Amino acid sequence: MKAEIIAIGTELLLGQIVNTNAQFISRECAALGIDIYFQTVVGDNEQRLLDSLRLAASRADVVICTGGLGPTQDDLTKDVLATLTGRNLVLHEPSMEAISEMFASRGIHMVESNRRQALMLEGSDPLHNETGLAVGNALTFEGTHFVLLPGPPKEMKPMFTKYAMPWLQLRMTSEVPLYSKMLKFAGIGESNLEHLLLDLIQSQTDPTIAPYAKEGEVTIRLTTRAHAEAEGELKLQATEAEIKKRLGEYLYADQDVPIETIVLQLLVASKKTLSVAESCTGGLLSDLITTVPGSSESFLGGIIVYSNKLKNKLLGVPMNILEGEGAPGAVSSETAVILAEQLLVRTGSDFGISVTGVAGPSPSEGKPVGLVYVGLAQKNEKTEVFTLQLSGNRESIKLRAAKRALYQLWKQLKEN
Amino acid sequence: MKAEIIAIGTELLLGQIVNTNAQFISRECAALGIDIYFQTVVGDNEQRLLDSLRLAASRADVVICTGGLGPTQDDLTKDVLATLTGRNLVLHEPSMEAISEMFASRGIHMVESNRRQALMLEGSDPLHNETGLAVGNALTFEGTHFVLLPGPPKEMKPMFTKYAMPWLQLRMTSEVPLYSKMLKFAGIGESNLEHLLLDLIQSQTDPTIAPYAKEGEVTIRLTTRAHAEAEGELKLQATEAEIKKRLGEYLYADQDVPIETIVLQLLVASKKTLSVAESCTGGLLSDLITTVPGSSESFLGGIIVYSNKLKNKLLGVPMNILEGEGAPGAVSSETAVILAEQLLVRTGSDFGISVTGVAGPSPSEGKPVGLVYVGLAQKNEKTEVFTLQLSGNRESIKLRAAKRALYQLWKQLKEN
Repeated sequence: MKAEIIAIGTELLLGQIVNTNAQFISRECAALGIDIYFQTVVGDNEQRLLDSLRLAASRADVVICTGGLGPTQDDLTKDVLATLTGRNLVLHEPSMEAISEMFASRGIHMVESNRRQALMLEGSDPLHNETGLAVGNALTFEGTHFVLLPGPPKEMKPMFTKYAMPWLQLRMTSEVPLYSKMLKFAGIGESNLEHLLLDLIQSQTDPTIAPYAKEGEVTIRLTTRAHAEAEGELKLQATEAEIKKRLGEYLYADQDVPIETIVLQLLVASKKTLSVAESCTGGLLSDLITTVPGSSESFLGGIIVYSNKLKNKLLGVPMNILEGEGAPGAVSSETAVILAEQLLVRTGSDFGISVTGVAGPSPSEGKPVGLVYVGLAQKNEKTEVFTLQLSGNRESIKLRAAKRALYQLWKQLKEN
Repeated sequence: MKAEIIAIGTELLLGQIVNTNAQFISRECAALGIDIYFQTVVGDNEQRLLDSLRLAASRADVVICTGGLGPTQDDLTKDVLATLTGRNLVLHEPSMEAISEMFASRGIHMVESNRRQALMLEGSDPLHNETGLAVGNALTFEGTHFVLLPGPPKEMKPMFTKYAMPWLQLRMTSEVPLYSKMLKFAGIGESNLEHLLLDLIQSQTDPTIAPYAKEGEVTIRLTTRAHAEAEGELKLQATEAEIKKRLGEYLYADQDVPIETIVLQLLVASKKTLSVAESCTGGLLSDLITTVPGSSESFLGGIIVYSNKLKNKLLGVPMNILEGEGAPGAVSSETAVILAEQLLVRTGSDFGISVTGVAGPSPSEGKPVGLVYVGLAQKNEKTEVFTLQLSGNRESIKLRAAKRALYQLWKQLKEN
């Protein structure tokens, strides 16, 4: 079934609130196997709302509206749908009783406009509002199913899940729900990844293959239609295996989690501890790690050696390596090694990661913006250094450097 | 001017991401005096995108598109607008050079599809992308202004603010432009602040007063209409003075900057240095500070003493304060004081800030989630401790704690 969502409210058009309702309904519809073709936002304006409903009805099987069911003069959704369908508005007695009771129990006088919240279109099915006063409506008119939901998310969500979804499911005859899986990659850019999968992407039919990128991480979503998980997995199997064959070294999870979560799982499982020394990332790497609940089990802490003074004072990098003519400098493989190794000595952790580089906006020590060294030290093992040339602004370089450091540790933990 | 926003991307229709771009653009347009009549979301589908563009062009003066400018086969926005307008796509040489340079500097092979990101419609104006590769486009066709922006918010936002807004303003002829000013507050919650300004907010006409909150900071936007800055300032003067009278102790800036920027300006101006000790914020405080370019001038670095072991080992908190029956514990005013004072000893900085608390999701040491101690030590001065009870999830508590620590330092720097 093809569906559209219409969110009604001038506050959305003024940018005062973000349209999380459309996201919620879209996600629930995807799980049901209903395809959303358009989301529209329209203000509290009679003519424009009528135009939007008419357009949606002309091209969709299902039109889901949210907002405009309240008591004020601005709440027009039922009135406008009444105009479109030529039906009358009638009082839904149980809702009217609930409204009267609520006012009585709070000892406040009910103003007449509250009666509007108990109105429904003649011949429609009421959708119960467990967390508010405005009753929802569902009806079929000239082959299109209309669902009217309230705007406040705390009223809309339970009404949609408990009452609107079953109502819609009864009207879905032949369709099979969507089944999706996320593959998460690090250490590789979006365009490179796509390049390596181009033949698969271009010839995709079932499953569909959709790559997209967030800073420092790339996701591929595989989607098919299946009645149950086992059937879905079976239909994804061949494509997933082919992707793993080509990109296995970058694939860190088959669910939508950040790499720091997986790194911490591996650390906890192997009972290893970690500490970090950050220069150019300035605390971001530690921040990402400590975003994971329970990270204290493996993460001892970090030392942010932002200045050369602290690189020397707290982690013992000799001043003649950091400064002076011909010295390697703070942004160097030498400094990265000492920082990582000294972490093991001074914190007693099993792993030490260091990050030193130029986040910009200006070059430093005559070195270009984006040049970053990641050091990875491990008890009783040779320390490794990775040289990166990252692009982007200061914020992106910090994030990409932190994610790459996590990627290198993930690789090491997988090998151990 | 009447405008519409079209966000393009199947991930929006699947509910995988929420359409924050529409909110951002709507809010900025409201400030410019451009009225948004519709927001639409459409998938990566040629025919449906063409239909949406055609409909928008038929009823709006301005059509702002976001998304679909990337390198992949799914990125169709420019192609579809080329179809609608009958114009060709041509290469924007400076963007092409930037793309080639980026790949060369990273030593990776550029795949042909990346060229697509440098294409623009013939006769259009390029909109520079400071934080990504895809060039934006702006053009007027049959009386409608089209603006094409990338989808990722970190590329879209600066492109819109710096390049698309001035382009649109030049095309707004008859209207008196809006003049806005942002007042930024820290150390006070949104509802408290609103309560203290309620009479002003309820009786507002000109200027309008719009409060809104981001985690840990509250902003008030004052808006009027004026032809020039001097006229605008004059019209805002009385309201601004009244707000300052009531809330001056929380007002850290009269422009839209985060508090860390102001704290660093004050540190640099007074030639003072800072180091931090973070437990529950886990690196976030340092990360915020080092997001400010040039922060290395005053910020020496930090020590993330996430584990008790490192609180003891790196900053000398005695184990009998941290652990054992009747001990104050890691989350205590005693620990906050020692951490802050030891920073001065071990890093030589003029100021030391410590943050120790319970970020959640579970209580710790029998102390509730959200309890946070901020220590503030200063050379030759008595160390202060601030006890906070913050609300929100793990991430919010980390952010609010870090912002409150910055607020306390800001207050101290103002007094000095």
